[in-house]
Amino acid sequence: MLKKVEEFILSRPLARLSTVTPAGLPHSIPICFALSGLDTIYTPIDSKPKTSSKKTLTRINNIVNNDEVVVLFDRYSEDWNELGYVMVRGKASIVQNQRENLGAATLLKKRYRQYREQNYLPEDPTVIEVKVYDYTSWGNLRCK
Amino acid sequence: MLKKVEEFILSRPLARLSTVTPAGLPHSIPICFALSGLDTIYTPIDSKPKTSSKKTLTRINNIVNNDEVVVLFDRYSEDWNELGYVMVRGKASIVQNQRENLGAATLLKKRYRQYREQNYLPEDPTVIEVKVYDYTSWGNLRCK
Repeated sequence: MLKKVEEFILSRPLARLSTVTPAGLPHSIPICFALSGLDTIYTPIDSKPKTSSKKTLTRINNIVNNDEVVVLFDRYSEDWNELGYVMVRGKASIVQNQRENLGAATLLKKRYRQYREQNYLPEDPTVIEVKVYDYTSWGNLRCK
Repeated sequence: MLKKVEEFILSRPLARLSTVTPAGLPHSIPICFALSGLDTIYTPIDSKPKTSSKKTLTRINNIVNNDEVVVLFDRYSEDWNELGYVMVRGKASIVQNQRENLGAATLLKKRYRQYREQNYLPEDPTVIEVKVYDYTSWGNLRCK
């Protein structure tokens, strides 16, 4: 990933994770995330209340069935010369290694005050890892 | 769609359109949009430069192959009590009727100064119509 792409991604507080359901329908939700190196995105199942009380969240179920995901980072501005986005393609899985999981939680806490100071991240959270293999960028990615 | 869901959607300057490629991969991009009534979302192929010079845009190609789409409307805030989103499921198609197309362009111009005052919308734009059949909402949708 180019340096300016990485900078743009890190400047975004939020991303959107898109997956495909077993029936072939799209699914998309806003996510908090952290970058590790240039090709790994972590996003946790945090303690915000969930829409569903189902045991397995849709995003997890989708990933287990089809690991191809998209993570979208974008910027809106009233000045349309400032518009830009990066659409990342990757393979998603659930982090199983406890050490990696701890590392991901640390990165997430570093990025989000709310994870550090409030009770939004469980001790040992489930973390989705996205291994980036490709991306498309558009528009103005310059960060001030 | 409930009134408060509609208000939340209209308060968002941008949405994200997720589709599925013929190979079953997710695809997602930021979009400008307008609402018509409670169950129709319009988004134009506008004159912003495109990533690809291919004759058919990925989103169009995907929709022709699989009309199931998701449109995501979300709000981020430093105060996580303000977080919220609406994920809309719908069937997408290209508006063919010229009168409807003109109506969609008028709605888009009403919402976006940039379409009214700058050269971002062609005279007779291609417009994607999403007929909403379901939605999921989460978090705080209150608009001040």
